[in-house]
Amino acid sequence: MGTDFQPSGIVGTAVKKIKVGILGGSGYGGSELLRILLFHPNVELNLVTANEHAGKTVASVHPNLNQLTDLKFIGNPGEEQLSQLDCVFLALPHGQAMEVVPGLPPHLKVIDLSGDYRLSDAAVFERYYERRHISFEWQQKFVYGLTEINRREITEAQRIANPGCFATALLLGLFPLVDSKSITGKIIVDAKTGSSGSGAKAAANTHHPKRTNSFYAYKSFTHQHLPEVMQVLTEAGLSDELVFQVHSAPMVRGIFASIYVSLASPKTAQQIRELFDQYYRGSFFVRLVDGSPDVNWVKTTNFADIGMAVNGTNAVIFTAIDNLVKGAAGQAVQNMNLMFGLEETTGLLLAGSNP
Amino acid sequence: MGTDFQPSGIVGTAVKKIKVGILGGSGYGGSELLRILLFHPNVELNLVTANEHAGKTVASVHPNLNQLTDLKFIGNPGEEQLSQLDCVFLALPHGQAMEVVPGLPPHLKVIDLSGDYRLSDAAVFERYYERRHISFEWQQKFVYGLTEINRREITEAQRIANPGCFATALLLGLFPLVDSKSITGKIIVDAKTGSSGSGAKAAANTHHPKRTNSFYAYKSFTHQHLPEVMQVLTEAGLSDELVFQVHSAPMVRGIFASIYVSLASPKTAQQIRELFDQYYRGSFFVRLVDGSPDVNWVKTTNFADIGMAVNGTNAVIFTAIDNLVKGAAGQAVQNMNLMFGLEETTGLLLAGSNP
Amino acid sequence: MGTDFQPSGIVGTAVKKIKVGILGGSGYGGSELLRILLFHPNVELNLVTANEHAGKTVASVHPNLNQLTDLKFIGNPGEEQLSQLDCVFLALPHGQAMEVVPGLPPHLKVIDLSGDYRLSDAAVFERYYERRHISFEWQQKFVYGLTEINRREITEAQRIANPGCFATALLLGLFPLVDSKSITGKIIVDAKTGSSGSGAKAAANTHHPKRTNSFYAYKSFTHQHLPEVMQVLTEAGLSDELVFQVHSAPMVRGIFASIYVSLASPKTAQQIRELFDQYYRGSFFVRLVDGSPDVNWVKTTNFADIGMAVNGTNAVIFTAIDNLVKGAAGQAVQNMNLMFGLEETTGLLLAGSNP
Amino acid sequence: MGTDFQPSGIVGTAVKKIKVGILGGSGYGGSELLRILLFHPNVELNLVTANEHAGKTVASVHPNLNQLTDLKFIGNPGEEQLSQLDCVFLALPHGQAMEVVPGLPPHLKVIDLSGDYRLSDAAVFERYYERRHISFEWQQKFVYGLTEINRREITEAQRIANPGCFATALLLGLFPLVDSKSITGKIIVDAKTGSSGSGAKAAANTHHPKRTNSFYAYKSFTHQHLPEVMQVLTEAGLSDELVFQVHSAPMVRGIFASIYVSLASPKTAQQIRELFDQYYRGSFFVRLVDGSPDVNWVKTTNFADIGMAVNGTNAVIFTAIDNLVKGAAGQAVQNMNLMFGLEETTGLLLAGSNP
Repeated sequence: MGTDFQPSGIVGTAVKKIKVGILGGSGYGGSELLRILLFHPNVELNLVTANEHAGKTVASVHPNLNQLTDLKFIGNPGEEQLSQLDCVFLALPHGQAMEVVPGLPPHLKVIDLSGDYRLSDAAVFERYYERRHISFEWQQKFVYGLTEINRREITEAQRIANPGCFATALLLGLFPLVDSKSITGKIIVDAKTGSSGSGAKAAANTHHPKRTNSFYAYKSFTHQHLPEVMQVLTEAGLSDELVFQVHSAPMVRGIFASIYVSLASPKTAQQIRELFDQYYRGSFFVRLVDGSPDVNWVKTTNFADIGMAVNGTNAVIFTAIDNLVKGAAGQAVQNMNLMFGLEETTGLLLAGSNP
Repeated sequence: MGTDFQPSGIVGTAVKKIKVGILGGSGYGGSELLRILLFHPNVELNLVTANEHAGKTVASVHPNLNQLTDLKFIGNPGEEQLSQLDCVFLALPHGQAMEVVPGLPPHLKVIDLSGDYRLSDAAVFERYYERRHISFEWQQKFVYGLTEINRREITEAQRIANPGCFATALLLGLFPLVDSKSITGKIIVDAKTGSSGSGAKAAANTHHPKRTNSFYAYKSFTHQHLPEVMQVLTEAGLSDELVFQVHSAPMVRGIFASIYVSLASPKTAQQIRELFDQYYRGSFFVRLVDGSPDVNWVKTTNFADIGMAVNGTNAVIFTAIDNLVKGAAGQAVQNMNLMFGLEETTGLLLAGSNP
Repeated sequence: MGTDFQPSGIVGTAVKKIKVGILGGSGYGGSELLRILLFHPNVELNLVTANEHAGKTVASVHPNLNQLTDLKFIGNPGEEQLSQLDCVFLALPHGQAMEVVPGLPPHLKVIDLSGDYRLSDAAVFERYYERRHISFEWQQKFVYGLTEINRREITEAQRIANPGCFATALLLGLFPLVDSKSITGKIIVDAKTGSSGSGAKAAANTHHPKRTNSFYAYKSFTHQHLPEVMQVLTEAGLSDELVFQVHSAPMVRGIFASIYVSLASPKTAQQIRELFDQYYRGSFFVRLVDGSPDVNWVKTTNFADIGMAVNGTNAVIFTAIDNLVKGAAGQAVQNMNLMFGLEETTGLLLAGSNP
Repeated sequence: MGTDFQPSGIVGTAVKKIKVGILGGSGYGGSELLRILLFHPNVELNLVTANEHAGKTVASVHPNLNQLTDLKFIGNPGEEQLSQLDCVFLALPHGQAMEVVPGLPPHLKVIDLSGDYRLSDAAVFERYYERRHISFEWQQKFVYGLTEINRREITEAQRIANPGCFATALLLGLFPLVDSKSITGKIIVDAKTGSSGSGAKAAANTHHPKRTNSFYAYKSFTHQHLPEVMQVLTEAGLSDELVFQVHSAPMVRGIFASIYVSLASPKTAQQIRELFDQYYRGSFFVRLVDGSPDVNWVKTTNFADIGMAVNGTNAVIFTAIDNLVKGAAGQAVQNMNLMFGLEETTGLLLAGSNP
């Protein structure tokens, strides 16, 4: 595929488009992939599945897309249909990608938004996801898709395990510090997420009358994004503990992570900012801000806003992302762009709104 | 019972308490009954049912009541248990009260929060509630519990059909105008409700990620509170049409009704206010306000705030209530107070909070 | 200008861009213009003013645009600067456009988002806006920019008075009915708006602790968008009264209008839908829906979703728009597109998000 | 006063009421004091001030209290008026209590909700509050009013410095651990507050269109509640650092604190719970919960809900309070109850609502 694909931006030539499919288009991850891919200048969206909605129009399930697409959901695609694609996004519930991946045509580039292929240790996977892995031998063929950290590997990858939403927020805030050996001792991460992180299905914890006035913690010491964070950071040299606590905030979109670290030596906020600035030079979607970021400014966008406060050796790094975009669908498309030789930002210049 | 019951407020005497049970204590109606009755100075709350929670503490289902009660839910109460009560509140889903009522001990005062016994025409009931009534012969034994309008009948009633939340808002805003023959022609009512009106069970329309940014209309021309409103107003002399449209607003508590009427002759807002003032003199829970009320000021309280705007013969009456209190549990307790010879306000001086 | 401007979409040719300025870029109208115009393929945004922020970057005031523009706010632009533009948007507070317009270079196409030049009767203007008009002689040179209704005049216009947000919602829902003489008698409009309609400045009615739980009515019989609605509908043949009541809902974006009409003869919802369908055939941004629209599906987009419910001669038309896009900045750009010979949808395919 | 005051609960005797005044009744602290004290069985509320509202009814400023009080705000009270009171609450902006206190009649019991007299070190006060203290000599006459920790001193106190809202949440979660020497090393506190914590005045950070979708950190390393926490904990034996970071969450009421500690030796959650259970035995308003508390269950109440998660020596303590009740007005009344020999819970059995 790689040879006959033409990057966009060549004036006067017809652009060869990437033929894309989405498996699992009814959830919020799928919904955001649709919102982005339908307008991506180098993508031809050919196929989107949703078993329970097979035959219905996409717009009947996602009325925000009414008038913008005539696509219909299909059920399970046949081999014929898949073989005509260049790239497929898996936006399926945890545990389903592992069933699907082994049967996909080998030429297909695959981007999996679930946690099925992120962890390189099967025992760790089973502990955190509470299920057995049925195609773990495929895990090695996946590259962990944290774009800003793994850009080179992603560019050459055939299959991507797209990071978890919390993992994205944590790693973008921690990697420069760990990789530069700037910190020492235990790391505390206090993360907060909006209700869209719980998915599109109604549940007790997202019941509007309660959630609107709720703030609470959950999954202490057991959140499934912790091991993927540790996997990356350990490889980067981290030897200390990381305590990770997630909370539900009464907002719809966004993750805000407060990362508490001890610096190896006293620094100013300006010095830490410069460290981040060096790491993320060339990373369009990382925006360094003074003081604290705010999820309001990243909502519906692919940006990760990072700020920091420092007092001697005590530092707090603040990361804000949209859980469904930079934390899922947006980063997935960012990875697709790299895999197909496109500008990383293609189709992703989503400007959030002020109010 | 009536004879040996003693109203409270007699200093120096032990107050004889009303022995109360709640059938259906796990929903929002039951939750609000609990919040009120546990602190009612003349009530001894003896029994509360919830089939799916039988054996659990009330506080485990309603953690707001943690530390405030040791009550446990029971399943179906036996005849023995019921026979020791003075009064029972039915906070069951529509269609269940009609099964329970015929079997209740005859001495029991009954206050039904559902729609089962509000409508005097079985055919109308079946059309709007989409089910057959299995104990319609009992309907005549119920008094419609709109306290401010039916105070005298309620005082002497043995069984109360407590009004629907929307019906309460509409009737308080319309009755004085209809009864005084002040209006003519078609009435338009545009009502808005918070998400708690949909009950305690999670559902697609109360999924936080969607509901938070939603405003929409539903049940056009078919809402089941319309016939009880028409029943009352027709008896009061209304011969014109009433168009009733309900909407879901992205708030948790409250109903706001905008009632558009044509006055029989031009009036000022002050004159209409005086008309309402006369009707509701002595009605503690009706508060007349200048201009528009705001659900913020009635939330969690038993107040109905009523305002109005008038321009010649065009008038808009605005009513704001808390759907779960004045629109359900609070009015039910207000009715109980009357039925047992207590001050109407006993246990109901719930002050809402400013923010 | 018109002669040397080239519509986009000609492959292989450099597109001549429209040179655009925004006067008043710090408010929400300006913010939304920036969000749209910065990505408009035929626009070169040259200038944006904000007196109190002169010298600051746009991104420092609208952090959602951080990384997406290097523009800085300027104070009052000089004649030289204005003379190099093709088009200017006025997103100034009511009362300021009337001071600015007479001094603008005559070649400039002008799109005014305020109410200054919408009303053709100076006395009506003064009554509703509570100020004297200081350049009323310019009013006749403005075309009322309700795109779907006035498309032809807008295409040829030099100056546009962009409609009010409520007026857009009302007129899109009412014009087909009035113009086709399908309705008779008094019209009642009950409209609800989000808090962003109050602008970017903090005020008591948009204080988060209160607004979050508030629903209330305001400006009964006196809202300034009423006369522009009446001006259009009277010209279309309306002779009956229209009662217009606005409400504040606890949401950020969106207007939902419930329009109550009496049909001249009984119709089905399907028949009314077909009537609307005919009127809006070719109007990309009007989406007809079954039953009720929902502001959730239009938020941040230029769509106007219209639904309806009919019962004999009683009908309710429901219109949902985003107050800042179709109700302001989006429609303004839609008008610019027409004025410059572009596809009406250029730069406006903003897909809202599901959650 | 103490001698002729009679605790309530003596059946058959007229209860001697505490004559109470509130200085500063227009803000949220004053609003909550009013909501509580108007219904306190042992309180006669004689006087409430608000300079900008002098002469207006309390209900016109706090419409939630409409019908529940006829009180009017006054401006500055004269000596005569103050001398007739038994107790005065100061709910004034920071910096005003220090002006008022020296002139108060010496017999008056004083409960100050501001930060003016909490800190025993004038230099620390000036650093954190950024103003000079003009009556610091009075600070020693104030007892720090964290009821559950300082109960005995409060009972005998003449003047109370009521704790800050964040300080209450932190200290209730930390004191048992510090006092029992159960923890070692640096403490990290990540606290989140609702918008009502910013007060009743509209401001940019509480503008509804922005705050609704915002989550951000502020006042890193500089929050003024940190020194009062350190003052208490240092006295209890803390010698390690405490990093304190506050965040704004898009809710109206509530503080949620996540407190990260290292245990001196590995423990189970059950063991830590038992430690807390012992400390708070007899403290009605502290409710220990399994796992995480939720601000939804404490909103509008005086409860502090505390939960915990433990993994070896890593522990997280979660505290949830209502910032305006247990974090301000409720705790102030709790202190008043103790100072006047009443049951600590008198007038404070405020049941929150479920939805």
